[in-house]
Amino acid sequence: MADGRLRVVILGGGFAGLEVANALAKAPVDVTLIDRQNHHCFQPLLYQVATAALTPADIAWPIRWVLSGQANARVLMAEVDGVDLESREVRTGGGRFAYDILVVATGATHAYFGHDDWAAAAPGLKRIEDATDIRRRLLLAFERAELLEDEAERRALTTFVVVGGGPTGVEMAGSIADVARNALPDDFRKVDPAQARVLLIEAGSRLLPVFPERLSAYAERALTRMGVEVLTGVAVTGVDVRGVTTANGRIEAGAVIWAAGVQASPAAAWLGASHDRAGRVEVGPDLTLPGRPEIFVVGDTASVRDGDRPVPGVAPAAKQMGQYAGRVIAARARGAPTPGAFAYKHQGDLATVGRKAAIVKLGRLELTGFVGWLFWGVVHVYFLIGLRNRIAVAFSWLWDYVTFGRRSRLITQAPAGPG
Amino acid sequence: MADGRLRVVILGGGFAGLEVANALAKAPVDVTLIDRQNHHCFQPLLYQVATAALTPADIAWPIRWVLSGQANARVLMAEVDGVDLESREVRTGGGRFAYDILVVATGATHAYFGHDDWAAAAPGLKRIEDATDIRRRLLLAFERAELLEDEAERRALTTFVVVGGGPTGVEMAGSIADVARNALPDDFRKVDPAQARVLLIEAGSRLLPVFPERLSAYAERALTRMGVEVLTGVAVTGVDVRGVTTANGRIEAGAVIWAAGVQASPAAAWLGASHDRAGRVEVGPDLTLPGRPEIFVVGDTASVRDGDRPVPGVAPAAKQMGQYAGRVIAARARGAPTPGAFAYKHQGDLATVGRKAAIVKLGRLELTGFVGWLFWGVVHVYFLIGLRNRIAVAFSWLWDYVTFGRRSRLITQAPAGPG
Repeated sequence: MADGRLRVVILGGGFAGLEVANALAKAPVDVTLIDRQNHHCFQPLLYQVATAALTPADIAWPIRWVLSGQANARVLMAEVDGVDLESREVRTGGGRFAYDILVVATGATHAYFGHDDWAAAAPGLKRIEDATDIRRRLLLAFERAELLEDEAERRALTTFVVVGGGPTGVEMAGSIADVARNALPDDFRKVDPAQARVLLIEAGSRLLPVFPERLSAYAERALTRMGVEVLTGVAVTGVDVRGVTTANGRIEAGAVIWAAGVQASPAAAWLGASHDRAGRVEVGPDLTLPGRPEIFVVGDTASVRDGDRPVPGVAPAAKQMGQYAGRVIAARARGAPTPGAFAYKHQGDLATVGRKAAIVKLGRLELTGFVGWLFWGVVHVYFLIGLRNRIAVAFSWLWDYVTFGRRSRLITQAPAGPG
Repeated sequence: MADGRLRVVILGGGFAGLEVANALAKAPVDVTLIDRQNHHCFQPLLYQVATAALTPADIAWPIRWVLSGQANARVLMAEVDGVDLESREVRTGGGRFAYDILVVATGATHAYFGHDDWAAAAPGLKRIEDATDIRRRLLLAFERAELLEDEAERRALTTFVVVGGGPTGVEMAGSIADVARNALPDDFRKVDPAQARVLLIEAGSRLLPVFPERLSAYAERALTRMGVEVLTGVAVTGVDVRGVTTANGRIEAGAVIWAAGVQASPAAAWLGASHDRAGRVEVGPDLTLPGRPEIFVVGDTASVRDGDRPVPGVAPAAKQMGQYAGRVIAARARGAPTPGAFAYKHQGDLATVGRKAAIVKLGRLELTGFVGWLFWGVVHVYFLIGLRNRIAVAFSWLWDYVTFGRRSRLITQAPAGPG
């Protein structure tokens, strides 16, 4: 504790980590936020980068820019190797950092249910690089198809499979269908992108199980109207670069996108802590590690209960946990009474299906269709950080809505062409 | 010649290749444009992507989108392996394509004067990937420096060397100094980006030798005022990941950028043609290969004379050659008389130095300073393809000018952090 000020080290600059830092802006503490990326990524819109509607800089900001005005905070870009609980130090590739209070907010990544070999063939969607990787695969599939003479091969290459019927899967499937039908058709001569097949495969009995059945049914109808083939109750048993195998048979595809499972970051291993099946660290009612009041775990890395249900892995939950942890730490630093146990306030559920279609559930309010879509758009633009990005994103959406265009159709970091 | 229509195959979707296709829009020919990238890149603004002022989608467009309205043109993404002159076919990774007329417009890349091992340590600036690579190196150098305790090491990491005093080198050096002094300072705690060293090293006796001496001297003064150390008459004798060695001694650096040499694409080898020292194919007065009237070579790949001087490797020259070749081909397809020999019309020289400073030479008109900068900005926004990108680029520039910001400061595809 240099100068008597608490040293707070935050691991991760996602929604949860940034909220912790913000909540400590006026507290008598020294904040060090460490992330392996230099940018915060607005994950709820990542699927729009993957489908070329937005460009990475529209939804990502340098973390140090976000915190540049906060005098008690510094930002470091480094990969965390582990935590020394006894000496209270974080070990990173860029050195060791001592803490009085540690906040772990390192998020989650995709999980392939024990089939890690599927990862290379079916990327998930968590980071900017994932989004540009998926964008490259989608666009390259059309490019390769345009070079082929064989109709069946062309058909296979322009088939896209999304595995997992949660919000990300629904958004990806709807957005791929939208690009194929509305943005690409004029650009190709041999391939007809409007004929591309988009399949959404969900092992459970319906899409979007967190929503009421009526809204799930609406989403399925809206997707079907957009040309997506929705397969529920179908388990995927194999994934490779040429397609997927399901209980019902084989589907050849030009790209497979994984939206089926989530696995917490390796924080439980760093902390030697108990965790649930998805790797989330089990924390006490104040979000600290049992027996370690100096270690908080927040966001998608934490396993927290909301009554008899788990707190969901969504941005508002991560933000609430971050704010709470920040308030507890600020109170401790000031010697003030700390707030009671963390209580999750569920604000509602939103999912967009495509152009002019989204579903919204806020308490008793249920919206669908164009009204839901407008509501969804306003909420997401509102939560984007920074005036400039709000203008840029609003402008991109408005433009695409009017022109049916997708401007960010760049294939970068690609092996040069097919062959 | 299917259906009696000439099959025109264009290799390369840069300025020259696109102009050929445009000039053939109404000609009775079938155009196939082949590029290994899916996008046309507006190279004159690439340095702004490298320094985080613009985002890749601001200056690059899918080639097939550019040509989507041209019914007689198709676009294929494939890597060219070679040309069979006798059977008149192009060999690519995506198949063989027969031509009646071939236009080679595959551009140029960097040249390291026989030191190809310097390439990994000192990237040049020709493609979008080069720009994001340089952006990553510049930003990572500051990130790594922020993790260090040793002042001398920090100083070395925040030293940037640009090799080559032509327009690209001048623009890069000015733009790096601008980012370091104006965009970054609030974001760092240990490093003071305003103290970053930027060196511009030129082996010749002055910067920008194509301009009159008065304008070269102005550019050097403007750079010096911005904090760039200009070293003329200094040869670089070694380049590695930790810096450069010059005739005057060693300079440790956090990033080295190469802007010193250009080498034409391997077209001469494909065609078995004679070429100049930079690999440019020697063509006749109508830009065809001697003895091969069915093969045109245009843009940076061609060695063309303008009186006693070579035609420079700039965008307007590439466009003029492309337009000319397109007109000759259209005339042949219609059986009309073909135009006389290609004549290059030099429109002038422009180079920007930094915020509010550029030099312009148009005939007898010479502009410097803010007026030159405004002129430069208007010309470049005007030449960007498509209304939308003009709005986006103009908006980005205006915003940055007002806020001193650089929004696109993303490190992507990076090895995760230092260490």
